[in-house]
Formats: sequence, C-alpha cells, structure tokens
Amino acid sequence: MSVTMKHVQSFIERCMMAVGTQLHHARSLAEVLVEGDHRGHFSHGLNRMDMYVKDIKSGICAKDGDPVLEKESAATALVDGRNLLGPVVGNFCMNLAMKKAKEAGIGWVVAHGSNHYGIAGYYAMQALKENMIGMSFTNTSPLVVPTRGKECTLGTNPISVAAPANDGDSFVLDMATSAVALGKVELHDRRGDPIPEGWGCDAQGKLTSDPKKVLNGGGLVPIGGSEATGGYKGYGLGMMVEVFCGILAGAKYSEHVRTWKVTDRVADLGQCFVAINPENFAPGFSDRMSDLLSIQRGLDPADPHTPVLAAGDPERTNMKKCDEMGGIPYHINVVNHMNECAKTIGVSKLLPCDNLISN
Amino acid sequence: MSVTMKHVQSFIERCMMAVGTQLHHARSLAEVLVEGDHRGHFSHGLNRMDMYVKDIKSGICAKDGDPVLEKESAATALVDGRNLLGPVVGNFCMNLAMKKAKEAGIGWVVAHGSNHYGIAGYYAMQALKENMIGMSFTNTSPLVVPTRGKECTLGTNPISVAAPANDGDSFVLDMATSAVALGKVELHDRRGDPIPEGWGCDAQGKLTSDPKKVLNGGGLVPIGGSEATGGYKGYGLGMMVEVFCGILAGAKYSEHVRTWKVTDRVADLGQCFVAINPENFAPGFSDRMSDLLSIQRGLDPADPHTPVLAAGDPERTNMKKCDEMGGIPYHINVVNHMNECAKTIGVSKLLPCDNLISN
Repeated sequence: MSVTMKHVQSFIERCMMAVGTQLHHARSLAEVLVEGDHRGHFSHGLNRMDMYVKDIKSGICAKDGDPVLEKESAATALVDGRNLLGPVVGNFCMNLAMKKAKEAGIGWVVAHGSNHYGIAGYYAMQALKENMIGMSFTNTSPLVVPTRGKECTLGTNPISVAAPANDGDSFVLDMATSAVALGKVELHDRRGDPIPEGWGCDAQGKLTSDPKKVLNGGGLVPIGGSEATGGYKGYGLGMMVEVFCGILAGAKYSEHVRTWKVTDRVADLGQCFVAINPENFAPGFSDRMSDLLSIQRGLDPADPHTPVLAAGDPERTNMKKCDEMGGIPYHINVVNHMNECAKTIGVSKLLPCDNLISN
Repeated sequence: MSVTMKHVQSFIERCMMAVGTQLHHARSLAEVLVEGDHRGHFSHGLNRMDMYVKDIKSGICAKDGDPVLEKESAATALVDGRNLLGPVVGNFCMNLAMKKAKEAGIGWVVAHGSNHYGIAGYYAMQALKENMIGMSFTNTSPLVVPTRGKECTLGTNPISVAAPANDGDSFVLDMATSAVALGKVELHDRRGDPIPEGWGCDAQGKLTSDPKKVLNGGGLVPIGGSEATGGYKGYGLGMMVEVFCGILAGAKYSEHVRTWKVTDRVADLGQCFVAINPENFAPGFSDRMSDLLSIQRGLDPADPHTPVLAAGDPERTNMKKCDEMGGIPYHINVVNHMNECAKTIGVSKLLPCDNLISN
C-alpha cells in the first residue's frame, strides 16, 4: 500500500509532538525521514520513527532549545547541537555552511552534541537549491570491523556529496563507508539467504557468507571487503569521516560512541557539513557536470538490461515511482508497527482508509 | 641495492635540468618522487622519472614560468597551472591553501592546466607541518570502468587526507579510488599469476582474474569490485574526485583526459588542495587523533601475525626500513633503466660505485 507523503509527514509530526517535541523540530525530523523513504532508503525513514519517539520520550535526546554557535570564522564554524534531534542540528549547520559559502566561497561547519540525522544526502542536497556543492558526514555507533581486526570500532560513517548540473539534474553520492548497510544483512538473515562474500565478518574477523555470524558477535566490513580486494581503503575512508566528525568537533568517536540501539546515555555524535560555491572557481560548472553525467549514463552497458547510472539515479527512479503512484509504498508490517507505536502515545493512525492507495 | 635519498634527489634534478627544467622546478619534482619511493610507492617515484623527462624534452609540458592565481577569496582560489610540472603546481596550491587556512580556518584551492604530480599524499602531508589537516585530489587518465560499464571513463582519481596527532604521529590516507593500482595488475601479469576477483574487468565489463584481459581492452574496477559488493560506491568516489578536480577547476575531465602514456597533447589535469585548521574547531584535536589511532592499532588482530594498522603505517614502516639501510632499495633493472635514460641526455649515472650500499 502507498501513503501520500503529506500524510506520512503529518503522522510523524503528531507522533513526535505527542511526546513533547516542538513543532518545528518535529517538522524537520519528519521532512528528513519522508525524504529518506521517497528516495528509497527505507532504513532511514518512517521505519526509524519509533527510535526518535523513544529518544524524546525517555529524555535521552533534548526536546527544547536551539543549537549554539560556539566558534566562527568567515568560512568555518563549530556548533554545539545541544543534544537536539539530528535534523535540527543538521539544518542549522547546513544553512550556516551555505551562508558562509555565499560569502567566502566555502563553508565548513562541524557539530558535536548531535543525534542521528537520517540520510546524510538530505543535508548535502540542500546546497543544490543554491547551485552549490554540498557535503555531509556523520559518525555513528560502532558496527564496522577495521581491516585485520575482529571488533567493531567504527560506525558506518556515511559520506554524502551533491553537485548541481543543468536543468535540475545532479550528482548525489550518499553512501556508508561499510560495504553495505546493516539492514541488508538483517534482510538476508530473515530470508535465510547467504550474503555475498565481502559484506561482513564473524567474531574472529573472518569474512563470512552467513548473516547470523555477522549479526552475532561479528560485524560489517569496510567498502572493499578483504585486505586483498582493498578493504583497507574503505577502512581509511571510515576513519576520514571520523576525523571530520568526532575528532574535529570534539564529540564522541570510534568505540566511545554508544552501542547501536542502546540509549543509556546521550549520543553526542559528531557531524560535518560543507558547502562550496562553484562561482568561486571556473565558470561553466553545471555545464561540465551535465556533460560528466551524460558521459557515464551514455555508456554502452555490460548487460543491456542494466544501464550505467550516476550516483543519485536509483533514488531518482524511486522518487518517480512514488510520484506516479501518488505516495510512498510501505510494507503493511511497517504501517502496523507504526500504528502500534502511535497508539501507545495516544496519536491517530497513519492510515485512515481514504488515504489508502492500492498498488 | 640501495641508494641514498640525497643521490636520488640530485640525479633526478640533473636529469630534469639537462632537458631544460628550471632548478627549483626540478627540485620540486625530485622531492615528490623521492618521497614516493621513501614511502614505498615505487610506482610513483624514480621509476616514473623518464616520463617527466620526456614531457619536458618534447615540450608537451612547460619548462618555464609560474602558476597564476586566477580567482581568489579569503578561503578559496582558482589557479592556472600553466602546464607546468605537477609538483610545481601542487606546491603552489598547497602553500596557498595552508596560508588561507591559517587566516580563514580553511583553504580550498583548485588548479587546471596541471600535470602528473606524483603521490597525492605528498601535498596533503605538507599541512601536517603546520598542525593542520591536509587533503589532495587529482584526476588522471581514464583507466577505470564505471560499475555496469565496459569502457574506461574515469582515472584512478586518488584521495589523500592527512591529519596530525601528537608527537609527530599522523593519519595519512593516500589511496586510488580504483580497487588497486594498474601497476599491481601489471606485476601479476609479468609473474604469470592470476589476480584476485574484484581488481579488474575484461573488455565486456565482466570481472576477471586474468590480468591480461584487464590490460588488453578491459580496465580497473572501482573500490568495492562488483555491484553486489559495493563497487558503485568506489565509482561514486571516483566521480566525486572528478567533481573536485576537472569539473570545479575547468580542466579536462573523464574521457576527455588524454590516454595514459599517450602524450600527443597537454594533460590539462585538474587538481584540488585543501587545508583545514583544527584550531578553528574543538580544542584538543591532536589528543583525540592520537587516541583514535591508538584504539585501532591496539586492537586484537584476527591473525596475530598481521597487526591492525592505521592509514600511513605501512609507509612509516617502509621509511624506517630505508632509513636503517641508509637509502632506498631499488631493483637493479630500475637503476639500469634510469642510467640508460641519463646517458641519452648526457647526464652522469645514478650510481657511482662509492654510493652503493649492499643489502
């Protein structure tokens, strides 16, 4: 079944407000989650709302206040996220980065005291509206085992870079620095399917195709998989994100970040937001971007059924599909689970019948 | 046999000057190449000197002049490399980026009209001397096949990020965005060994373990290998580097960059140099960096014979080895080849006997 984006948005807003979130904070969170689902990143959408509800309800995440600018230059800033919802911190920082990029050519803003902020791409893409390059990085709870190790000491630490081309087209890279997301391993486990070699390792640090071993004492591995196939590069990229986030911002980092789904203490995540104004560099940026995208998309594919894409294209296809069906397609289990969650906090359901769209 | 770094440095200088290079340009190039060998990246050291000699001799690379600052703000700059040797352009830009970072917290400098600049890490590491984070990126001749494609439309487009820790320690990521360097495939081919699945593909875009197929009509694949193991992420990172380099700088990009080793026209490479001053962010940066490095290095390894490392550690080991033996160990074939090259341009040999160190 599909649900209109408007209805998902207002459902998340009323759930968050029911537990005491300020309207504009709830709205920021809802926008990021809806965008996650719209782009097809269901692991970072409505599916995760209960985590945010729980964080606000338990008081482990702050429901009131504003991020605070701690240190500033023409092109840089350090922000204290005041333990507010990730999207509240993210929007504050990304707006600041864009403002600085307009004036100084670049804005590089880092925040400590933040929380999960949804898809990294949401913030990077804000810069597209101003014809600028946007970047966003965050550290996360340890789920990734460094090359040669057997313990998780790095998060999936995503990198997002968005760059504007002509006529609304764009390049949008939004990727974890692990080979895959944890959700993909969980999905294979539920289905009883093996995972491809190079996704995760067991508790002894050995690559495995058994998802159960990855989930029970093992961990995800960095992009590149084994050391022989370049996994040390993915490990290095995960560390790079940590340098830009936890280390530069003075937030928690590496194994000091709290365990995934254990909310016994504040998250204090580190995040980094960058905007770059192409006008400060060579004229004709968006023309060259369009040409670069055309070159790749126009390539003769190895398999005629799978065309060569550019980063952001799979998401574009998903958005088009949603728009054509008039809403976001959710699995009935997700809808039921969210309605259960809504019930416990006394909020009306996601789906009054007249909003149902069959597909 | 080993040769002292001083002797390699002066040999490269006199070879480059013999074909008309200015002393300070020759010196810049020699420093980068020697550093490449010292760090163990032999594919980017003395081994490549004849390429630079040829470029200057043929006039396809400029031997005279200085890079020109075309556009500037407090934190950004666009530079015309004037077709000078890559290290001349690279040093100019990196120094500028560091100067800006001291004043504005960050310096983001891009150059067009550049040439091969040796190891990317050389420039990123300059920032360590000022206790800053350094970054460097360059596009290169197309050698990498995008995910789902079968033609090379991206270079190995390296990413380098260096960050200072306490007591001279540091994190130095210096990696191509291809799974491996072309040189590794060539080496396996010469030895008659198969390559691991995930290094390269054949002319039909299919992953292969036959190095000959990669070298003849096929290509390298991005970090991550196949689409299933996350190769699209490596492809996206290669594109990101192209955005920062060719696209932002208005240089040649993607398939427009000249073919590897074909020097029928100027290279017009795009390069990007960044310095970030940690003092503009949270206090205690280098303490946290040291702790982050300690966490990873202190991990219990999966195999007791291969300790967990941080980016830059293998190079550190190689430098120590060189320093202990009093010079850089070269294969006799490399020395002979370079002496042949020197002979044709009327320059004295690399190795008068009294500089020989046996190992």
